[in-house]
Amino acid sequence: MITGKNYIGSQLKAGGTKILKTFNPLLNTENPWVFTEATQDEIEEAVALANQAFASYKNYSGIEKAKFLNAIADEILALGDDLLVQYCTESGYPRGRAEGERGRTIGQLKAFADMLTEGSWVQATIDTAIIDRQPAPKEDLRKMLTPLGPIVVFGSSNFPFAFSTSGGDTASALAAGCPVIVKSHSMHIGTGEMVASAIIKAAQKTNMPEGVFSNLIGDGRTLGTSLVKHPLVKGVGFTGSIKGGRALCDLAAQRPEPIPVFAEMGSINPVVLLPNALKKNSQKWATAYAGSITLGAGQFCTNPGLLLALKGEELNDFTEKLDQAIETIQPGCMLHPSIYADFNNGIAKIEEQNGVSRIAQFKGETTPNHGASTVLKVDGKEFLKNAVLHNEVFGPFSILIECENEAELIEVISKLEGQLTGTIISEENEIESHKGIIGALQNRVGRLIYNGVPTGVEVCASMLHGGPYPASSDSRYTAVGIDAVYRWVRPVSFQNWPDHLLPAELQNENPLQIVRTVNNKLTLSQI
Amino acid sequence: MITGKNYIGSQLKAGGTKILKTFNPLLNTENPWVFTEATQDEIEEAVALANQAFASYKNYSGIEKAKFLNAIADEILALGDDLLVQYCTESGYPRGRAEGERGRTIGQLKAFADMLTEGSWVQATIDTAIIDRQPAPKEDLRKMLTPLGPIVVFGSSNFPFAFSTSGGDTASALAAGCPVIVKSHSMHIGTGEMVASAIIKAAQKTNMPEGVFSNLIGDGRTLGTSLVKHPLVKGVGFTGSIKGGRALCDLAAQRPEPIPVFAEMGSINPVVLLPNALKKNSQKWATAYAGSITLGAGQFCTNPGLLLALKGEELNDFTEKLDQAIETIQPGCMLHPSIYADFNNGIAKIEEQNGVSRIAQFKGETTPNHGASTVLKVDGKEFLKNAVLHNEVFGPFSILIECENEAELIEVISKLEGQLTGTIISEENEIESHKGIIGALQNRVGRLIYNGVPTGVEVCASMLHGGPYPASSDSRYTAVGIDAVYRWVRPVSFQNWPDHLLPAELQNENPLQIVRTVNNKLTLSQI
Repeated sequence: MITGKNYIGSQLKAGGTKILKTFNPLLNTENPWVFTEATQDEIEEAVALANQAFASYKNYSGIEKAKFLNAIADEILALGDDLLVQYCTESGYPRGRAEGERGRTIGQLKAFADMLTEGSWVQATIDTAIIDRQPAPKEDLRKMLTPLGPIVVFGSSNFPFAFSTSGGDTASALAAGCPVIVKSHSMHIGTGEMVASAIIKAAQKTNMPEGVFSNLIGDGRTLGTSLVKHPLVKGVGFTGSIKGGRALCDLAAQRPEPIPVFAEMGSINPVVLLPNALKKNSQKWATAYAGSITLGAGQFCTNPGLLLALKGEELNDFTEKLDQAIETIQPGCMLHPSIYADFNNGIAKIEEQNGVSRIAQFKGETTPNHGASTVLKVDGKEFLKNAVLHNEVFGPFSILIECENEAELIEVISKLEGQLTGTIISEENEIESHKGIIGALQNRVGRLIYNGVPTGVEVCASMLHGGPYPASSDSRYTAVGIDAVYRWVRPVSFQNWPDHLLPAELQNENPLQIVRTVNNKLTLSQI
Repeated sequence: MITGKNYIGSQLKAGGTKILKTFNPLLNTENPWVFTEATQDEIEEAVALANQAFASYKNYSGIEKAKFLNAIADEILALGDDLLVQYCTESGYPRGRAEGERGRTIGQLKAFADMLTEGSWVQATIDTAIIDRQPAPKEDLRKMLTPLGPIVVFGSSNFPFAFSTSGGDTASALAAGCPVIVKSHSMHIGTGEMVASAIIKAAQKTNMPEGVFSNLIGDGRTLGTSLVKHPLVKGVGFTGSIKGGRALCDLAAQRPEPIPVFAEMGSINPVVLLPNALKKNSQKWATAYAGSITLGAGQFCTNPGLLLALKGEELNDFTEKLDQAIETIQPGCMLHPSIYADFNNGIAKIEEQNGVSRIAQFKGETTPNHGASTVLKVDGKEFLKNAVLHNEVFGPFSILIECENEAELIEVISKLEGQLTGTIISEENEIESHKGIIGALQNRVGRLIYNGVPTGVEVCASMLHGGPYPASSDSRYTAVGIDAVYRWVRPVSFQNWPDHLLPAELQNENPLQIVRTVNNKLTLSQI
C-alpha cells in the first residue's frame, strides 16, 4: 500500500536517489518502507502545478471547496484500519490516540466545509455610492477576502494527523482557496503518504484542478529551503521547534518578496497554583496535573511545563501528592529515539543548574523510548537569574517555581517568553486579590484558562492557538479553529465595478445569502 | 509657537545637540525653526513611558478611547489657521489641499471614535460549555481582540496630516489600545510638533495615561533603528519608499522577538485603457488622467504611473489629447528640492532607455521645485525586457506601454510587482471579452477600479489601501479605513473564566450591547 513516492499533483514520482526510512519507537526498530526524497525537478513541478491550479482554484465557490474538504474526510475514513495501524507503527502512539486524532482531523475538515457552505467568512463589506456628496461624489466600494496563492505546509512530529498532511494548516489553506504543498514530516512519511492519497482521491472525485495538492518527501533543510524560497510560494504554515520555525521565518523575510510564515513553535504553558486552591483541592489538582503533564507522553504543544506557586504548607502537600500521582501513570512511548534522547538530555541539563531539586519522577521500569515523567523544582530567584531554566523540555516534564511572594511570582511571569497558554488554579475567594497575576499572564499568552488544564485544544471559533513570540511567529493569528483561514487570505476592493463582474459575494442581490457589512451595518439583505 | 523640541510623553525635551531644519519649497529657502534631534536617553524614556502607559491604556473602554480620539480632532481644529500656514510653509502644498487633508484627518479620527463607541470591532466570539458532551465535556471559550503594545509610527513625506503625526496609523493604533511613538517626518517637523501638541492636550483633557503618545525628532536611520529594535516596541507603521520600508521590515524580522511592520511603500498603479473606451471618450479620459497624474504634484501613492493600452488609431488620438490636457495644467510645487531632483533624475533615467519616447510634457515656464508633468511611451516588448522601466518616478509622471495585442498586455500585467491599485477603462460592450486582463490585474493589486482614477482614497470600511509586496509589506492588511485597526491587535481566548473577571465585551449580559458570534451565530443577545 505504501509506495514511498512523492505526490506531484496526482502523480506518484520518485526520480531521486536519496532515501529516508521511518522508525517504530515501540519495537525500537526501523520500519521496512523506503521513501525517496523529492528531486529539485519534482519540487519545481509541484510548485508550478500549484501555481497553475491557483488560477482556477481561487475562483471555486465555497460549495465546491466544501465538497472537496468533506470528500477528504470521507477518504481518510475509507482508509480504515490500515491507516490507524500505519499511524501507530510510525509514532508509537496507542490505538485510542490514533482514533481520537483521526476524529479531530475529520472534524476540522468538516468545520471548514461548514464555514465555506455558510459563506460569510469572506467578510464582504460594501459601501454604496453617494453621487451627490460634496465636495466630491462617493464611489461604490466593495471588499472581500481572496486567497494568497500556493501555501507550503510543514507537518508536525507530534500530531501525524491533526497538524500534518491533512491537518489544520492544510484544511484552512484549501478552504481559503490556496493550493497546498505539504512537506511530509520525516517521522511518519508512510502515514503522510496514505493521507495524501486520500486528499488526491478526494480532489479527483470532486473535480479539483490538478496540482491543488502535492506531498513531498525530504529532509527539512534542503526541501524546506527550496519551498520557502520559491517565488511562486505565497505563504507558509509550520508546527515544530523554535529553531526550525525561526529558520523558516528568516528565510521568508529575506526573500525579494517576503511572505507570511505562521509558525507555531515552543511553549512551556505556565500554570499558577494559588494557595487556597491547593489547600482545598490538592488531591484533585495533583491528579489533574499528573495527567496533563504525561498526556501523549508529554508531547503536546500545550503541555504544562511550568508550575508557579507561592511557597508554604499547601504547596508542600501538593507536591507530595503530585509525586504519588506521577508514580501511578505508566510512561507512554515517545515519537522517536531522537526525541527520547533530547528529553533525557534536557532534564539532565536542567538538573545540573543551581538550586534545582527533583520533586517527582516515575520510578517504575521503563522500556526504550518511554520517558520517565519528571517534575523538578527551583525557587523564583534562581529561575529569574538563569535562562536555561526557561527552555522547553519536550516530553512529560514540568518544573515548579517556588516563589517567595506575589511580587516575585508576577516578575517571573513578566519575564517569560510568549506562551500558547496560561492557567490559573484558584478558589473563588482568592482570585480577586490576585488580579496582578492575571494581568501579567494575559500579556504573555494566547489563551487563559481558569481551573483546568492547558492540554486539550478545542476546535471552535473562539479558540486561539497561538500567542506572543515564540509561541507563534505572528500573535495576530490562530492555528486552530476556523479563524485559522485568515492566515491565507488578503482583502481586495472593487471600486465602481459592474455588478455582473463582481464575485457573487459582493453582488447586489446577495445570491449566496451571506451576512455582509453594508454601509456599516451587518445584514443579510440585498442592495 | 514652534519650540523645536521632542514630546517625551507630555514633556517637551531637547537635551541633544544635533539639529534639523525644514525647507519652504515655494520660496526655495530654509525655514527659520531649529529642531533638536532626540537623544538616546530621550528615546529610551519615550519607549519606557509608552510601555508604562500600555499597562493601563489597554484596559480603557471604547467610550474612553473614543473621547480621546474626538478630542484630538477638536484640538487639531482649534489650532486653526496657524496649523494650515505651517503645513503650507513646510510642504509647498496650496491652502486648499491643507484644508482638505485636515478634514480627512479629522474624519479618520472620528471614524475610529465611532467604531470604538459602537464596539463590535473586537470580534467577540463565544462558544458556551457543553458539560455532557462525549467523550469529553466542552469548556466555555470566549475570544476577543486585544492590543499588541507600544507602536512606532513613521510619518510620511507626502501627507503631513493624513499619513503622519495624527494620521491613519496613529489613529488606528490608539483606537486599538496601543500607545504610539511617532518619528516625525523630517520635511515637516514643525507641522508635526503642532499636531503632537494637539494630541498631548487631548490626552490630558481626557485623562489618558502619561506616555500614551510621544513625538520624536531625528533622522530616519538613527532614530528609526533605535525605535524598531527596542524590545518594548511591539509593532511598526510606515508610509514611504520601498527602500525605507524594506529596511524597517528587515530590522524588525531580525529582532530576537520579531514584530509586525506594516509598510505602505511603492506603487505605479497600472491603468488599462481598452480601445472602445478610448474611441468613444478619448477627451474625457485624457482630461481625467491629466488631472490624476498631476494631482498634488503627482505626489500620491495612488498616482497612475503606468498606462497600458493596445496600439492603434484610438490610442494615438488619446495620447494627442493627453498631451494637450497636460499642457493646460500648471505644475504644482513639490515637497522638497530633493524630491524635485529625484523626479527629474528619474525621468532622465527612463528617457535614456531603449525605445522610450516622450508623448506629453508641460512646456510652459516653471519655477524651482515645480516638476514639469511628463508622460513617456515605450512598447510592450521593451517594457518586459527592461526592469528600469518598472521603477516608480515619484511626481507628476506616467509611462504608456503600447502593447502589440492582448496576450502581451496580460504578460505585462503579470510581470508587474504588487500594486496598491489597478484600473480598467472600458465600455460595457468590450469588458466581457477582456476577462483575462481583469484576472491578471486582480492578482497584482489591492484595489480594482472600473472607469475612474486611482487617486482619491475613500476612508470607509470597504477600502483596501495596501496590496501585494512591495505595495505593502503584508497584503493581508489595509492602511486606510477602520479595518486598519486590525494591524495592531491580537486575539486572546478565555477558557472557563469567571464571568465577572471577563472583559465587558465577553460577559454573559453583553453589557456593551455589541454584535458577537455566540455558538457560531451573530447576535446582540445576552447569554
